[in-house]
Amino acid sequence: MELSRVEVVLVRPSLPANVAAAARAMKNMGLRRLWLVDPPAGLEKPEARALAYGSQDVLDGAKRASSLQEAVAGSVFVAGTTGRDDVRGGTWTPRRLAAEAARRVGEGRLSLVFGPEASGLPSRELDLCHVLVRAPTDAAQPSLNLAQAVLLLAYELRLAALGVGEDSSSIAPEAVTAGELEQALEDLRGALLEVGYLDPLNPDHILTELRRLLARARPTSREVTLLRGLARQIAWAGRIARSRVTAP
Amino acid sequence: MELSRVEVVLVRPSLPANVAAAARAMKNMGLRRLWLVDPPAGLEKPEARALAYGSQDVLDGAKRASSLQEAVAGSVFVAGTTGRDDVRGGTWTPRRLAAEAARRVGEGRLSLVFGPEASGLPSRELDLCHVLVRAPTDAAQPSLNLAQAVLLLAYELRLAALGVGEDSSSIAPEAVTAGELEQALEDLRGALLEVGYLDPLNPDHILTELRRLLARARPTSREVTLLRGLARQIAWAGRIARSRVTAP
Repeated sequence: MELSRVEVVLVRPSLPANVAAAARAMKNMGLRRLWLVDPPAGLEKPEARALAYGSQDVLDGAKRASSLQEAVAGSVFVAGTTGRDDVRGGTWTPRRLAAEAARRVGEGRLSLVFGPEASGLPSRELDLCHVLVRAPTDAAQPSLNLAQAVLLLAYELRLAALGVGEDSSSIAPEAVTAGELEQALEDLRGALLEVGYLDPLNPDHILTELRRLLARARPTSREVTLLRGLARQIAWAGRIARSRVTAP
Repeated sequence: MELSRVEVVLVRPSLPANVAAAARAMKNMGLRRLWLVDPPAGLEKPEARALAYGSQDVLDGAKRASSLQEAVAGSVFVAGTTGRDDVRGGTWTPRRLAAEAARRVGEGRLSLVFGPEASGLPSRELDLCHVLVRAPTDAAQPSLNLAQAVLLLAYELRLAALGVGEDSSSIAPEAVTAGELEQALEDLRGALLEVGYLDPLNPDHILTELRRLLARARPTSREVTLLRGLARQIAWAGRIARSRVTAP
């Protein structure tokens, strides 16, 4: 696995110390690409930088984004972390994620997404992830420090990378990015609203299930095009049906 | 493995914050027994205790020893950690250690020994250990933070204790049979014919693509149900639309 293709996305971290410690944990495990979504002030202060011991380059090279969508738009596989054990569709272990990442990294960039320290990722951002990962912590103290969570996932990815080595025997199919998949989902949202399948007040529940299903399938560009064409045709039928049903 | 028999020994840690963060990491992974050999002053200060978030009990229950010998005297198996890759007899990975620990824990207490932040364990203390463990860090930044090192070993021991093997994942999702998937595809065929997306003379081309896509995703029963409901709604809209378009 090429670890250089793995990106860590920290969403609204509140403590500069944790961001710095996460940068060190990344570099410990051979990861270098860091995204910060709405990071706290104070990252440049000496006491924070000290915690990035030997890894200030990772911190300094971090990219900024104003939303999670923006940070993961170029990724083919987006794994979100959560401490919740009641999420729809269940969660993967870090080890399972690593095995999957090793299989998929040939396709493009992978994103590992971590939420704010106190609350974790909210549902609307968990819903943007293709899979959800939960560390097998003890019920007595399930909450991992942010940098510790980064380390665990990076460690498992590193082991998978070392295990897989330079294996390029399986030719990865071209995969679409999260942004392209979102376009297809947006079209499907419009189509399913037209035919009355989605509750206009809460369309996201079903769309999240479709996102998970489609992301697991790793659609090709051709398949995304097919889905979008299909969505257009459904929307057309839905518009006519609705105009007829609601006509006087 | 009974994790209650695993003891973490921190030898001359220099920063109270690291001791506190290590206590949290232990409790995250279900370990409780902490030994401190010649610890720093200041462990009782609020800023240190805050880092033991939810784990102050581990910190407060720590035993003190004046030497490593004393701290490990009651253990049947002593694993020392090192960042050096030139030690006599070589080093084990955390995962190998965990497998061995799972085998040996029935015999009595196990000790995981960590040295001072800056220097690690010196030779005379490494020599007291039964095996040496080294985390597979990257050469560009091999040095793990103390609490991070504790987390990694505790994590591997926890997985071994839970009986999670090398290649196991989380709960395998219930998979549907090929027959169930075909029912959903049959419904989708009907729906897409109704909305005019499929060529009635050759619908199978597109359906084959959808089958590949969905089969790759390994849908759950719930997802198959969702797809079938969606197909019914699309078919309904398609029937109305067609009747309108073809009406005289």
